[in-house]
Amino acid sequence: MNYKAFATANVFLFALVLSAGTAAAQTAAPAVTEDFKPSSLNQPGQQYPQVNSQGYARFRIAAPDAKSVAVTLGLGGSGGTILTKAADGTWTGTTAGPLDEGFHYYHLKMDGGVFNDPGATDYYGSVRWESGIEIPAHDQDFYALKNVPHGHVQQILFSSPSTNSQRRAFVYTPPGYDKNQSARYPVLYLQHGWGEDETAWSNQGHANLIMDNLIAAGKAKPFIIVMTYGMTNDAKIGHMDSFDIHPFQTVLVNELIPYVDAHFRTLADQPHRAMAGLSMGGFETKLITFANLDTFSRIALLSGGTISMDDVNKAPGFREKVKLVFVSFGSRELQGGRAMFGGDPKVNADGLTKAGIKNVFYVSPNTAHEFLSWRRSLHELAPVLFKD
Amino acid sequence: MNYKAFATANVFLFALVLSAGTAAAQTAAPAVTEDFKPSSLNQPGQQYPQVNSQGYARFRIAAPDAKSVAVTLGLGGSGGTILTKAADGTWTGTTAGPLDEGFHYYHLKMDGGVFNDPGATDYYGSVRWESGIEIPAHDQDFYALKNVPHGHVQQILFSSPSTNSQRRAFVYTPPGYDKNQSARYPVLYLQHGWGEDETAWSNQGHANLIMDNLIAAGKAKPFIIVMTYGMTNDAKIGHMDSFDIHPFQTVLVNELIPYVDAHFRTLADQPHRAMAGLSMGGFETKLITFANLDTFSRIALLSGGTISMDDVNKAPGFREKVKLVFVSFGSRELQGGRAMFGGDPKVNADGLTKAGIKNVFYVSPNTAHEFLSWRRSLHELAPVLFKD
Repeated sequence: MNYKAFATANVFLFALVLSAGTAAAQTAAPAVTEDFKPSSLNQPGQQYPQVNSQGYARFRIAAPDAKSVAVTLGLGGSGGTILTKAADGTWTGTTAGPLDEGFHYYHLKMDGGVFNDPGATDYYGSVRWESGIEIPAHDQDFYALKNVPHGHVQQILFSSPSTNSQRRAFVYTPPGYDKNQSARYPVLYLQHGWGEDETAWSNQGHANLIMDNLIAAGKAKPFIIVMTYGMTNDAKIGHMDSFDIHPFQTVLVNELIPYVDAHFRTLADQPHRAMAGLSMGGFETKLITFANLDTFSRIALLSGGTISMDDVNKAPGFREKVKLVFVSFGSRELQGGRAMFGGDPKVNADGLTKAGIKNVFYVSPNTAHEFLSWRRSLHELAPVLFKD
Repeated sequence: MNYKAFATANVFLFALVLSAGTAAAQTAAPAVTEDFKPSSLNQPGQQYPQVNSQGYARFRIAAPDAKSVAVTLGLGGSGGTILTKAADGTWTGTTAGPLDEGFHYYHLKMDGGVFNDPGATDYYGSVRWESGIEIPAHDQDFYALKNVPHGHVQQILFSSPSTNSQRRAFVYTPPGYDKNQSARYPVLYLQHGWGEDETAWSNQGHANLIMDNLIAAGKAKPFIIVMTYGMTNDAKIGHMDSFDIHPFQTVLVNELIPYVDAHFRTLADQPHRAMAGLSMGGFETKLITFANLDTFSRIALLSGGTISMDDVNKAPGFREKVKLVFVSFGSRELQGGRAMFGGDPKVNADGLTKAGIKNVFYVSPNTAHEFLSWRRSLHELAPVLFKD
């Protein structure tokens, strides 16, 4: 188990490097349109970073005495965007090409150190708080903050004897939860990726807004979402070489689920309990659900592996107990139709379909291993998740 | 109203500068004990900033090519702590004296620009996300994360027609709220200070942990706390010169309170509704409660002004309707017993007492205009707030 986890985990890191590039690598860069506006994620009143209608990003940093300033965004896998100094002491640079639509992490490389952009808001990724920028997506309406009834995102602190700590999770309760005091709801346990934490799915993922909008449109039935921290090997934080699923599985299955079922009006049984995760969280989802088929009936892997008939055949009871398999990727993650690892996801999905196992395979157009792929995946998943 | 608001608001800024110093300004600095440990607020795995047992802070920044690095903490009102460069390219500096116990905001001045410390976690203050450091307080147990039943902190999004926006608030629901489905609770509306936002009271204030611990010890009865953004003049963010209480009063009284009463099991009447605020939030609390004595029965100003018999005599109905006045300051804010503004708070408190108006005057020992004063103030306030 440990060796396999190690090997697979390294693939996640590799995939991150591979796919965090820009569209510019594939196509000639068009002329830059001078209609830059402040990124929607900027701190209050901050003019930079900016984004234009083509998806270029422009950065400006005030540091008159700096020797060098660069931004780790803009050229796939290489040196990023080099900023140049103007007479007023500010450093400015524009990406060499448009970025993918959606959310991107980045930071500054300045005078040999790593800093965040003082204009941007930070998001937890790469085991640190990183600057974030948002390229408006053509389909951004589905995760927009609208005048519809909103669910609540509750920070809970639950006791974890296995780790001797009080641990944090966030619980999305759908609109109507407070008023319908007799209603009970299914639950999705939803995991972040490597280097992220329990804040990711609501902060950069907008999971709550995606659900609010789907429910308001009558496209999804309300359910509860629980998001907690999945990198339980705290001693080796930032490293995957000691990865073992058991500490997190114990926290999730033996400690968090009982807390949630005791404190929220859940439908506390296997048919109404799902698990999903992105990237490393998908890897965790597969390990934990396969080992706990009496606990979970629905499994979703977002850019985090795939499920083959080989997997199914090795898991006694899978065919009877699992009601839905959902697998998704960003299109840029699929090189000529091949998955990053775990076999060709489309071939595997077709195999499940032929065997009569209900499943959905979704590919997010023109996105990579990044949050717009996962926002869209949740948007596709939610309407079908608890539909039997 | 506007002119008065402007003048008073400037006093808040002045007070911040005055009182954000170190104890070193008053006393000779002792020899530095070399028992520095990473600050409890550091990002995962980060060794710096560090704090020693005397309350000194030490900073280290990796930026080999920087020309200058300083930290805005360490000397009252002056240049802060200048970092010096070692052979390995890191910059290190230790404050000239011990800092007050508790939480402090700071940032880096580096090569002529303003950046956050990449080792620290950020907290919203000064109308931006700032680095935070925690000097362990001798009484830190009252806001520690312990193995006791925990309340939840719920992010809510409520519709605000007056500002044409969906606005955010956080709602603390006490332990037992989910299980006691018929219980109803009093509500405290609790405001942050200038430049902070609705995250401040739970992130840097630990309001939820203070309540959890008090309730577990049987020292306070459970109530709900609602925290929202009080700088509603977004157009002039960062400036107080257009401050007008009415936009925020409308959001709070006409929009947020009805939302909370509709979505939470509140005791939705004047006797069970309180308002408190720190610094500018105290100023807002005084204005809003005095104008809405049929809505609020309990008023608490934390480093945010005082209430005199002059105020009471100008407010018809105050004596009958107000059940508690709470006024607090950090001891370093009181220069020779004088308040920063609004008259001597002790004299004013004595005046209320003589007139038979129930009130509490609390001074936090050896703290200034900073969060340990306000954590302690909430800890003093909660047990008496809804005790008639």
